[in-house]
Amino acid sequence: MTTTAQSAATSTRVTPELWIEVQQFYARQMPLLEGRRLEEFLETLTDDCTLEHFPFGWRFEGKVQLLAEMKARRGDASAPRTEEVSARVARERNIPYYNGLVYRYWFDRMLIEPQPDGTLQVRFQAIVSMTDGQGKVSWEPTTVVDDVLVRDAGDGELRTRDRVITHDSANWADKVHNPA
Amino acid sequence: MTTTAQSAATSTRVTPELWIEVQQFYARQMPLLEGRRLEEFLETLTDDCTLEHFPFGWRFEGKVQLLAEMKARRGDASAPRTEEVSARVARERNIPYYNGLVYRYWFDRMLIEPQPDGTLQVRFQAIVSMTDGQGKVSWEPTTVVDDVLVRDAGDGELRTRDRVITHDSANWADKVHNPA
Amino acid sequence: MTTTAQSAATSTRVTPELWIEVQQFYARQMPLLEGRRLEEFLETLTDDCTLEHFPFGWRFEGKVQLLAEMKARRGDASAPRTEEVSARVARERNIPYYNGLVYRYWFDRMLIEPQPDGTLQVRFQAIVSMTDGQGKVSWEPTTVVDDVLVRDAGDGELRTRDRVITHDSANWADKVHNPA
Repeated sequence: MTTTAQSAATSTRVTPELWIEVQQFYARQMPLLEGRRLEEFLETLTDDCTLEHFPFGWRFEGKVQLLAEMKARRGDASAPRTEEVSARVARERNIPYYNGLVYRYWFDRMLIEPQPDGTLQVRFQAIVSMTDGQGKVSWEPTTVVDDVLVRDAGDGELRTRDRVITHDSANWADKVHNPA
Repeated sequence: MTTTAQSAATSTRVTPELWIEVQQFYARQMPLLEGRRLEEFLETLTDDCTLEHFPFGWRFEGKVQLLAEMKARRGDASAPRTEEVSARVARERNIPYYNGLVYRYWFDRMLIEPQPDGTLQVRFQAIVSMTDGQGKVSWEPTTVVDDVLVRDAGDGELRTRDRVITHDSANWADKVHNPA
Repeated sequence: MTTTAQSAATSTRVTPELWIEVQQFYARQMPLLEGRRLEEFLETLTDDCTLEHFPFGWRFEGKVQLLAEMKARRGDASAPRTEEVSARVARERNIPYYNGLVYRYWFDRMLIEPQPDGTLQVRFQAIVSMTDGQGKVSWEPTTVVDDVLVRDAGDGELRTRDRVITHDSANWADKVHNPA
């Protein structure tokens, strides 16, 4: 009985191998998004993936929705810089808000908790840097991200099934992405 | 003899399990401070904990002193923003300098060195981001942090016994926390 | 056959021990550069080390070149702040552009890939913070770094053999390091 209980406890603790696999997973995943390699990025998500922003409620379900949103919004680093625009206005007017910018995600404080159902809950804080053509750096508001990662039964690789992004500023969606 | 010497050397090297335990310790500890959950934060410190700032010399000893200082200073993210104020002036006039801000700690370059007495010396660089209600991000001056972690004989958990924060700017205490 | 193939695959996967050794390697290496302890920093590189910047093409080969460049450019945190100057102008006019600043490197998204030849390819994104005497923080443009680490046959320690820094802004070399 004790042995069983210990095994159960052990099975929900992150091992060094799993910890590092998760680190390397993100180290491969996020540069695909930064590099606007959107189809490749989506291969690191499950088919039924969800992405949701709090507070506000934008929620995307499945790869088709996500790809359409990302294609319309992520823009091109070598395009002329987009005028000053917020996330909300960019959606209303269908503007690629990251034109002319190289954006990079910075993660910290990663807490990895294997769940009894075999999924991984991963929580971390994140901030996005934006570097413009002249080298000026600006920052998006800070966030906390809650990911659910699952292991693909086919190839054995980790994939993101759900991502919830909680913004530290309630007015994040009205903040200008690329202030002059 | 060689075997003994190797064992001794090994005992002061950080194992993967310990490395990851320390990462997860901070991933649980620091969000409590960021979330102003001060009593819970203090549970991750020893009863005889010390916190000291260099250069300047503010030094806090024990949980009673620390809690009083943090309660008076950390403020509330949903309160109106505090007027422009430095750490020094905030203490002189008893002002909660982080009102209206979500602050987050970013750690990097963590060096973990187990000591012969069983404690862990942990050194890292840290910077604090401040996100205001409109999503504007500003940064506190960079620091280097030296922690001593000890393992509680009761519950077996790591706790912070001593934290020394060395500021990269000699005038950090006169810098305004929340510039407009 | 299957066993052999698996072994070969395993041998090029990063182990937890190696992952953590690399983390601690950088945790020891980079503060030497930040602290202007240049000779000690160079001890963490191989004798035939190279350092190259893209796009632009500054390339340094060997410790003699690198030390000369770093001595001329890195300056002194306690010196008066250098006038506004870019990397390019600092080289043309032989100016230590980091005078009066404490600069710190922030790494993220580290991908470690052991190679068949025994070297380690390490890729990460990096940003440099600059804290001035009054505590003001500014940021260099973001970069992606590709390192090749090798293990010294003598002392068994990791060392950097090649570092390629790809800047996210094509005009990084004309950006002022220390804007007022």
